Amino acid sequence: MSVGTLILLRHGESTWNAENLFTGWVDVPLSEKGEKEARRGGQLLRDAGVLPEILHTSLMRRAIMTANLALDAADRHWIPVKRDWRLNERHYGALQGKNKKQTLEEFGEEQFMLWRRSYDTPPPPIEPGSEFSQDTDPRYAGLGPDLPLTECLLDVVKRMLPYWDSEIVPDLRTGKTVLVAAHGNSLRALVKHLDGISDEAIAGLNIPTGIPLRYDLDEDLKPIKPGGEYLDPDAAKNAIAAVANQGR
Amino acid sequence: MSVGTLILLRHGESTWNAENLFTGWVDVPLSEKGEKEARRGGQLLRDAGVLPEILHTSLMRRAIMTANLALDAADRHWIPVKRDWRLNERHYGALQGKNKKQTLEEFGEEQFMLWRRSYDTPPPPIEPGSEFSQDTDPRYAGLGPDLPLTECLLDVVKRMLPYWDSEIVPDLRTGKTVLVAAHGNSLRALVKHLDGISDEAIAGLNIPTGIPLRYDLDEDLKPIKPGGEYLDPDAAKNAIAAVANQGR
Repeated sequence: MSVGTLILLRHGESTWNAENLFTGWVDVPLSEKGEKEARRGGQLLRDAGVLPEILHTSLMRRAIMTANLALDAADRHWIPVKRDWRLNERHYGALQGKNKKQTLEEFGEEQFMLWRRSYDTPPPPIEPGSEFSQDTDPRYAGLGPDLPLTECLLDVVKRMLPYWDSEIVPDLRTGKTVLVAAHGNSLRALVKHLDGISDEAIAGLNIPTGIPLRYDLDEDLKPIKPGGEYLDPDAAKNAIAAVANQGR
Repeated sequence: MSVGTLILLRHGESTWNAENLFTGWVDVPLSEKGEKEARRGGQLLRDAGVLPEILHTSLMRRAIMTANLALDAADRHWIPVKRDWRLNERHYGALQGKNKKQTLEEFGEEQFMLWRRSYDTPPPPIEPGSEFSQDTDPRYAGLGPDLPLTECLLDVVKRMLPYWDSEIVPDLRTGKTVLVAAHGNSLRALVKHLDGISDEAIAGLNIPTGIPLRYDLDEDLKPIKPGGEYLDPDAAKNAIAAVANQGR
């Protein structure tokens, strides 16, 4: 028996995705394509009759706008919202603002893939005060020493799971359909936890943008169907292949 | 001394404003002009350095989207949000969906103005099950007998004030800058309360769309400057004159 339905939605394409830049915590907007993806994600929810009853987002514009557009398309714009930095994208440290292709050429395949896909090796930390750091951003003013300067996926798992346990699980336990609108890496961290994926195997898992991924969870909060179900499986399959080739 | 700053923002033009229809609780979207007004409202906040720290909205698309667009323009899209039906527009009863000009011609100036501006005479109630009623809308499923079938401004005051007292005042008491994105009549109800406007005088008060109205409040939650201050006073003055002529 399912205790609740969880829907994961990675934000649509951002302007920096389109330009192939490392984004991390830089708060860039959706591209026009990204806005369309978000609306289509909402249409998929509506067509499938999967209607979110509460929304959790990060503090970042691309996830917030994706949720706003998707929920509007699904006629669920009015549901309650909770936002938290713990759902933010992985902080990309000193790579934030850098071109992925140039970084690959400059540092070589091995280092590039280590930074992108190693579970526990973060990129070099961002310099406080530099153009793409968040040290004067008012939304993170309360974080103090928790404010990351760089993160690997393990760091994301560590800061995301307390939010999962304290804020999302209670909503699921009341039987609600919960939408989490977030990012490639905060959602990979969540899927790793849900599906019990190993530190090694998570490197090979990509989540496509704008396609709702549905998990029905049992009483132990374990997926009834491992890996969940994309609301548009064919589009998800194609998009996953494309993400894997980023930076090439 | 000010305990907190309150910013009132009436939603931008909706598609039904543009068509001169009574809207009430019908959940119509913003027009293109309305979206522009919303973004400009956010720009005014940003330019004035009046940065909301928490948002309260109704459950209606035109207020929610106005807030989304304005906060995005002000770089405050990430602040916490609370939504409640008690901030909804006045329910317009059986007039919902009707053309204002035709209603004026059909019922005459006196009856028309009574429905629009009388403090305590609601329009005839909407027929349950009719095209523009809300009796099967999931967002109001929990309201039971509180679901209005028609409302006068007095009814709006009665259902809005408990939300003001229990949800908005506590946020102001913590010194926060609070944005309330709502509707012509729910905001008139609030301004009536804040400025102590009489049941008669409130008929003459119109609030323009998309122009933030700022109130600094003293320790008794009374406006330090009666009537507050529009962030664009000239535009507000012109818009107020235009609203007064609706239906002509």
